[in-house]
Amino acid sequence: MPNLEEAIPLSKKYFNYKPIVLGDFPGHILPGVLFFIVALWWSIKIILKHVCKQQKRASFLFTKEFFYRAEILEGIVLVGMALVGIIGLYLVLGKRNKLPDKESQLALVLHWHHLAIYIFFAMLGGTKILCFTISSLPVSLVKLMLSNAFFVDAFIFHNHTYDRTLVDTFGHQLLSFAIFLAGLVAFIEFLTKNNVILELLRSSLTMLHGMWFLQVAFILYPKNRDHAWDLSDHSNVMFLTSCFSFYYALTYVIIGINYALVTWLVNWRLSKLCISETQLLKNPEQQEESENEM
Amino acid sequence: MPNLEEAIPLSKKYFNYKPIVLGDFPGHILPGVLFFIVALWWSIKIILKHVCKQQKRASFLFTKEFFYRAEILEGIVLVGMALVGIIGLYLVLGKRNKLPDKESQLALVLHWHHLAIYIFFAMLGGTKILCFTISSLPVSLVKLMLSNAFFVDAFIFHNHTYDRTLVDTFGHQLLSFAIFLAGLVAFIEFLTKNNVILELLRSSLTMLHGMWFLQVAFILYPKNRDHAWDLSDHSNVMFLTSCFSFYYALTYVIIGINYALVTWLVNWRLSKLCISETQLLKNPEQQEESENEM
Amino acid sequence: MPNLEEAIPLSKKYFNYKPIVLGDFPGHILPGVLFFIVALWWSIKIILKHVCKQQKRASFLFTKEFFYRAEILEGIVLVGMALVGIIGLYLVLGKRNKLPDKESQLALVLHWHHLAIYIFFAMLGGTKILCFTISSLPVSLVKLMLSNAFFVDAFIFHNHTYDRTLVDTFGHQLLSFAIFLAGLVAFIEFLTKNNVILELLRSSLTMLHGMWFLQVAFILYPKNRDHAWDLSDHSNVMFLTSCFSFYYALTYVIIGINYALVTWLVNWRLSKLCISETQLLKNPEQQEESENEM
Amino acid sequence: MPNLEEAIPLSKKYFNYKPIVLGDFPGHILPGVLFFIVALWWSIKIILKHVCKQQKRASFLFTKEFFYRAEILEGIVLVGMALVGIIGLYLVLGKRNKLPDKESQLALVLHWHHLAIYIFFAMLGGTKILCFTISSLPVSLVKLMLSNAFFVDAFIFHNHTYDRTLVDTFGHQLLSFAIFLAGLVAFIEFLTKNNVILELLRSSLTMLHGMWFLQVAFILYPKNRDHAWDLSDHSNVMFLTSCFSFYYALTYVIIGINYALVTWLVNWRLSKLCISETQLLKNPEQQEESENEM
Repeated sequence: MPNLEEAIPLSKKYFNYKPIVLGDFPGHILPGVLFFIVALWWSIKIILKHVCKQQKRASFLFTKEFFYRAEILEGIVLVGMALVGIIGLYLVLGKRNKLPDKESQLALVLHWHHLAIYIFFAMLGGTKILCFTISSLPVSLVKLMLSNAFFVDAFIFHNHTYDRTLVDTFGHQLLSFAIFLAGLVAFIEFLTKNNVILELLRSSLTMLHGMWFLQVAFILYPKNRDHAWDLSDHSNVMFLTSCFSFYYALTYVIIGINYALVTWLVNWRLSKLCISETQLLKNPEQQEESENEM
Repeated sequence: MPNLEEAIPLSKKYFNYKPIVLGDFPGHILPGVLFFIVALWWSIKIILKHVCKQQKRASFLFTKEFFYRAEILEGIVLVGMALVGIIGLYLVLGKRNKLPDKESQLALVLHWHHLAIYIFFAMLGGTKILCFTISSLPVSLVKLMLSNAFFVDAFIFHNHTYDRTLVDTFGHQLLSFAIFLAGLVAFIEFLTKNNVILELLRSSLTMLHGMWFLQVAFILYPKNRDHAWDLSDHSNVMFLTSCFSFYYALTYVIIGINYALVTWLVNWRLSKLCISETQLLKNPEQQEESENEM
Repeated sequence: MPNLEEAIPLSKKYFNYKPIVLGDFPGHILPGVLFFIVALWWSIKIILKHVCKQQKRASFLFTKEFFYRAEILEGIVLVGMALVGIIGLYLVLGKRNKLPDKESQLALVLHWHHLAIYIFFAMLGGTKILCFTISSLPVSLVKLMLSNAFFVDAFIFHNHTYDRTLVDTFGHQLLSFAIFLAGLVAFIEFLTKNNVILELLRSSLTMLHGMWFLQVAFILYPKNRDHAWDLSDHSNVMFLTSCFSFYYALTYVIIGINYALVTWLVNWRLSKLCISETQLLKNPEQQEESENEM
Repeated sequence: MPNLEEAIPLSKKYFNYKPIVLGDFPGHILPGVLFFIVALWWSIKIILKHVCKQQKRASFLFTKEFFYRAEILEGIVLVGMALVGIIGLYLVLGKRNKLPDKESQLALVLHWHHLAIYIFFAMLGGTKILCFTISSLPVSLVKLMLSNAFFVDAFIFHNHTYDRTLVDTFGHQLLSFAIFLAGLVAFIEFLTKNNVILELLRSSLTMLHGMWFLQVAFILYPKNRDHAWDLSDHSNVMFLTSCFSFYYALTYVIIGINYALVTWLVNWRLSKLCISETQLLKNPEQQEESENEM
């Protein structure tokens, strides 16, 4: 648990950091949006896979090869994003080194933290590409690397919040908490294969992590200074607790709507396919065979 | 763990809150009674299901459809109760806003906490209704939402106890502890299906949560002011530790009696049914068939 | 974790308790010896069962009924011991009430703690008797009650160490730690049935709990006052850490010797039985049949 | 969690220990190198086993007996190393006893810690030898002793860091953390048998433990005093967090290269074997039979 108490007397010190930290508003928005999009994509992919398993006909629309290609593409995108992040860090570090000594040192250390996270997501991407192209590698390795990436993320965030205000610390600890839980679920997935609901749980926790990044960005760097949060008031910590729960509830609503939409879309496409099938109806025997093969 | 020590020097401050907090005696009794009733109902349902599995004849009395309808009814009741809670909060918040500033703000934050809990129980109810009416949805989703509701409950209570006295804090942390354990058991249930004893363990921990609500209500808001507890004495914390264990033992006694009663009742009904069956005895072959079908 | 630091400044206060606490030397020796004997008996029982499973012939010596009766006897002994403990507490409490006010109150609270532990072991005994006499009850309920008894024990000990010296607190926290681990292993046993090594692990942790009780007794109440431990020196805490590990290693040596002895004894009895069998050799067919039935 | 804050005011005191602790540079390098070598050997063994399972022909090169002998040899080496450690401790303790009183006492206590770790690794070695020579003993006992050795190691290190500087404490807590995770994975392996990736995860965490020993050695005992770390600066703690993650990523790279090398080597040997087989080709039927037997 964060020892929140120590942060309060340091709140004055906080204002000294502002020239550096202020620039980090996009630095919280960007990962938030990315995590949200990734989680949304995961939930669509998982639901689509599940629907294809339930309804055999749907596997005409989305074949196994489609999902393999999607995974490889996901891996490439992850590696790409991580490389962009690492290059971005390099450029930012160049600028930062011109800042006065003590402050730039802390900023440097915080950037090493980001580097560690990028490396693990790049490794996750690389593992995805390798596991879905080389057939001898086990697919469960991807789940392990996923839980590794999440756990390292949580570990870094847990040690990221030294010398910050009460609310700032608590917000970042909740970030760490959400991603730790996502890592735990990914690890349970790794141990017990093929549980759709566990996979959706993991993507809902990842989505929560993304949403919370956005919330933290708006708390720490308010657009309108007059409505800024009091970062050392304990009431705000207690309010954040309920906010965190509301966002978690929201992820379920989003994934629920997602489920309804995907199921409806697949059924609609199938019904159209069925009509054209009955009209054409060339060689039904052959089709049945290919179904049995699957 | 609660850092109990910080609460002691604040014990004087506590009396300032009394005009607000005092009204919460029913606010602790009500959830206590509700959790107790829910847990009792769960234990009856689980035992009944188990007895029906063991004795095939009993499934005449309580068919699968009976249990489905019971689950849907449970879902409706949960949604209803949560909605009543949310409306109640809205009315209370209206009154509270007329209170002086700082205090009303804290009361407001505490009410947001309650809202978060209500929302998750409403979601649990909604999931129950959906999963038992739409057959394509997996039933294990209900277990996940149950553990979610319990975990969010525990998370909220863990962050609910700022600026309280030693005994008050400890009491609420034990509330959080009991419901966290119930959530953990529900999550294990979600992973390993159909373990009767796990389900009973979960309902015993929920019952403990309910009982402890009642105990906390009587400690914090004593009827007779002369026999009030010293809320800053550490001996009371140690005494509460044993109380908590006694209540836990009590839940096992209650569930044990429940088990004996339900088994006896089912057997008694069955023996009566058997007699009437032998008297009527119209078409035994047909009956045997329907048994085999099940 | 124990916040050990708080205990140091209170070390002076400790001497005020001595007139009460001093009497507790047998109060630490007795449970230590009991836990040690129980764990030793468990390890013998588990090894014997395992050997009987491996060698079919051994099941002539120790039939299933033998183990059932052993379990019921164990249950009766557990209930008996717990009742003796409760009666003992009642008698002690009578005496204690004559002590001056504040001290007797603390002693009273500590005795409530013991009562809670006794009740859970009585419940464990009761469950054993019920589960092995009534065939419809599941045997895994015993494992659950065992883990419950251990967890409650650990919970009580964790909250048992207020206002004590550094070394005293640490010693009791390790007691809590050992029994918590034993409870955890019992719970894993409850989830994954029939793993011999898990059962032996549980009995080794219970044995560690018993041994550590003895060690704590000799640390806190030394026979020779000149060689008494300095209860506020942190070096002693670090030394206890290694002691705890040595005792844990010792439990494995004891269980290993146990395993060798039991295996050798069963084989020796079997070889004697074989000779007498070949001499008598009345109806070998009948015997074979009974073997197949098992 | 380490209460790091307490170490800061004691940083002056640290210099008093230097005459003792300084000698420990090889004491951190040696275990680091040993853990690294052990982990590397494990990863090779696990990958080799996995490749032999996938490709039936490879089992000609590395038979089951080969792996049995390797395990027994590993056991002998472990026992040997632990005995060398214990004898080394005995010799060092002889020298230390001539040091002034208070300091030698602390050094003595720290050496008891090492003794506890050596004993558990000796027990692990002994269990390996016994389990792979006596067929009636279950092989999963080795996994349990492995997780025991790791857990005791973590427990010892967790209580090893009293009265040290901030960075020193954090470095040792991360040592404890890595080996605790390795123990946890070994315990999960014990429960769920034959998961290659779990075994590789365990060896990667052991490798991390070894690497971190080396890192800690170079931080605490720098060769060049001018570039020594400020052991009480919190920035260094945050920097260590990223270092730890980088080393963890490195272990995956090493194991990945290992996997590629071993697979390539086995395939190369197999292709050579195939050629010589086709040239000789004496009795192909016999060979097929022996394959089926396996």
